[in-house]
Amino acid sequence: MSISRREFNRNITRLGALGLAAELLPSLTSPLLAQPSSRKIGYAVIGLGRIADLHMQGIHLSPNAKITALVSGHRDKAEKYAAQYGVPTSSIYSYENMDALRNNPAVDAVYICLPNSMHAEYTIRAAKLGKHVFCEKPMATTVADAQAMIDACKAANVKLMIGYRCHYESTNLAAIKLIREGAIGQIQSIQSAFGFSCGADEWRLTKALGGHGPLFDVGIYCLNATRYLTGEEPASFSAYAYSNPNDPRFRDVEENLVWITKFPSGVVASCSTSYGSNMDGYYRVYGSKGWLQVDTAFSYEGLSLKAFYNRDGVTESERTVVLNQPNTEKIPQQFVNEANHFTQCILENKTPTAPGEEGLKDMTYMREIYRSAGITMA
Amino acid sequence: MSISRREFNRNITRLGALGLAAELLPSLTSPLLAQPSSRKIGYAVIGLGRIADLHMQGIHLSPNAKITALVSGHRDKAEKYAAQYGVPTSSIYSYENMDALRNNPAVDAVYICLPNSMHAEYTIRAAKLGKHVFCEKPMATTVADAQAMIDACKAANVKLMIGYRCHYESTNLAAIKLIREGAIGQIQSIQSAFGFSCGADEWRLTKALGGHGPLFDVGIYCLNATRYLTGEEPASFSAYAYSNPNDPRFRDVEENLVWITKFPSGVVASCSTSYGSNMDGYYRVYGSKGWLQVDTAFSYEGLSLKAFYNRDGVTESERTVVLNQPNTEKIPQQFVNEANHFTQCILENKTPTAPGEEGLKDMTYMREIYRSAGITMA
Repeated sequence: MSISRREFNRNITRLGALGLAAELLPSLTSPLLAQPSSRKIGYAVIGLGRIADLHMQGIHLSPNAKITALVSGHRDKAEKYAAQYGVPTSSIYSYENMDALRNNPAVDAVYICLPNSMHAEYTIRAAKLGKHVFCEKPMATTVADAQAMIDACKAANVKLMIGYRCHYESTNLAAIKLIREGAIGQIQSIQSAFGFSCGADEWRLTKALGGHGPLFDVGIYCLNATRYLTGEEPASFSAYAYSNPNDPRFRDVEENLVWITKFPSGVVASCSTSYGSNMDGYYRVYGSKGWLQVDTAFSYEGLSLKAFYNRDGVTESERTVVLNQPNTEKIPQQFVNEANHFTQCILENKTPTAPGEEGLKDMTYMREIYRSAGITMA
Repeated sequence: MSISRREFNRNITRLGALGLAAELLPSLTSPLLAQPSSRKIGYAVIGLGRIADLHMQGIHLSPNAKITALVSGHRDKAEKYAAQYGVPTSSIYSYENMDALRNNPAVDAVYICLPNSMHAEYTIRAAKLGKHVFCEKPMATTVADAQAMIDACKAANVKLMIGYRCHYESTNLAAIKLIREGAIGQIQSIQSAFGFSCGADEWRLTKALGGHGPLFDVGIYCLNATRYLTGEEPASFSAYAYSNPNDPRFRDVEENLVWITKFPSGVVASCSTSYGSNMDGYYRVYGSKGWLQVDTAFSYEGLSLKAFYNRDGVTESERTVVLNQPNTEKIPQQFVNEANHFTQCILENKTPTAPGEEGLKDMTYMREIYRSAGITMA
C-alpha cells in the first residue's frame, strides 16, 4: 500500500483545519490557517538580523498581522525594511528610545530577534510597556532569567511565546501525527542531530552574547523534537562535550556536544550538535511496528519525511508504506503559521502553544545536559 | 569537482592492491585480493546456521581455502552442505565426536558459527586440537572467557581471528581511507546505529545462549566502527537501556540501548542499538572540513558512501564532492575477503587484522557500556 502524494498533502492540509495539532501540542487550539479578522495585530520587530528578516516575511503574509514598528541600532537597515513593509519612519526606534513604544497604539506586541543574552532584558522591558512578547529560542541564557521573563509577562498581563517554529511546520506535524496514530507502534528510541560550522565572526561564539554553544542554538531543536515526538518530559540526561583546542572559534563556548536522554516511559534518545561541523538536522524515530525519518527536519525548506511501517499486523517486509512530503516553500510557511498562531492567541486571548513555560523547560533540561558534560550553566 | 564513479571504483580496487589497509587497520599487511597458493587451507565449519552459510560461500570462493569438514547437531543439514561443497561424509562430525578433528589432516582451522555462549568452549576445544580458530563476534559472553580463548590459542600456538567482516568491506574501507587522507579534516563527532526486530524464537533472546542483547550482536558494529573510523580507543562511555516490559521477548536481555563515547582526542560519538526496531545500520562522521555518511554501513550488500567536503580551502557551499559507491555484490565480497585474509595469515604465519585481542577490547568496552546502563556483564 502506498499513499499518493496528493492524498498525503491533503492530509497535511487538514491537520490545521481539523485542529489536530491541538492533540499533538498541548494548548494549540487555534487553527494554523487563520481566518481574516476585522482587526490586525501590530508588531514591533526588535533586532533586524537574519531571523528577523524571516519573521517579518511571516508577519507580512499573515492575514491578521502587520509590522508597525522597528527597533534597531542601524537606522539605515531599519529605513530599508520600513519602506519595504510600509512602516512609518516615525515608528523606527533605537534601543535607547524604544520605551516610547508604550505610547504607540499601533504596536500590540514585539518580536525579539536579538542575541540570546539580550532576550531577558528586552522581554521584561517590552512587558513593562504593556506589549505582548514573541521571543526567539533559547528564551534566555540562564534559568533564572527565563523565570524572570515569565514572571514579568504575568505581572504585566501580556502573552509570552517562544519561537519554536517546528511546532508550526507541516513535515514535523505530519511526523507527530503518524506517531500519535500509532503507525510505527510504541516508540523505542530516537536519534537526532543538528549542527553547522559557525563563522568566526558570529555573535554565537561569544559567551556574553550567545550564552552557550551549539546546544543553545541548534541542539535545542533536537532536544525539543525528542519531547514533541514522544509527548514526554525527559527523566535524565548524560552528555559529553568536546572543543578542538586548536580552533580559535571555541575559546568561549563548546564546539561539539553529544547526549543521551531517558524518558519516563523508557524511551531512549541519542543526539548530537556542533558549531564545528555541518550536521544536516534530522531525526529517526524507531517504534515497535516501524520507523520514520525526517531529514532534513529543522530547515526552512526542503524537509522530507519517510515512514516505514506496516498495517494490520502484516510484516514490514511484505507491506511497506513510504511517505514523501518534500517541503519546497520559497517563503517558509512555518514562519507564517507561527505569526498566525501568536496573532490568533492575542486576538482570542488564548495561551500560545509554546509559552514561556515551554522555553523554561528546555532551559532547565539544557542546564542538566551541560552539567553532565562538565559545563556550568546558571 | 566531482570524482567519477569509474575513477572512484578504481580507487577502491587499489585499496587492496596498494596494501593501504595496512595503515588503516593495524597488522593487516596482506592484500585483500589473495594470490593463488600451491596449498589450500582446509576449514571445518562448526555450527551451520545463517552466518555459516555466508562464511561457507566466502571460503568456497577464496582461492586458497576450502571447506574440508562440517560440525553440526543436524546430520541432514550437514549432508546437504557436504554435497554442495564436496566435503566427504566421513568428515561430518557431531558436537560429541568433533575432537576426532585432531586426526583429520585436511582440517587446518575451524570457523566457529555457534551461539555466543558457545564461542569460548569451542574455541578452546579447537585450539587444543591444534587447529587455528576463526570465531564470530562477539568473541565470548564474558571478558574472562575472551581472555581464556586468547590464552588457549597462544598455548596451542594457533591463530585466533574474530569475525569483524566490515574490516574487509570495500565501502567501509573507502570511508576509512577518506578520513585518513584528511578529506573531511579532523573528526569532531560520529553518529551510528544498528538494530533489528528480533524474532521471538531466536537464540539471541536467551541470555544463556546470546549472553546479552543487541549491543552484543549488532551494536558491536557501531562500537567497532567508531574505533576504526577514529583509529582511537575509547576513553569513557555513558549509556541508557530500555526494555518494553510488555514485550515477552525481552525478559532476558535488553531491548534498546543508547550510548555516548568520548575518545582521548576529544572526538565524541552517539550510538543506538535495538532488538525491538529495525534500524538500518549507518554512521555519519563529522569533521572540521566536511562529513561522510555510510548508509547502510553494516549490511551484506547495498552499502553506500556519500562524502561532502571541500578541497583547497574552498568553502563547502561552493565546492562539494559527492561520492557514491553502491555495493551490489550478490555474494558479499566481504566474506570472501575475510576468508582470504585468514587463509593468508595461516599460509604466511602472520597475525590476523582482528586477533583475539581486538575482540577482547570490544568485550571490555561493552562491559563498560553495560555497567553505565545498569546491566551487569561478567
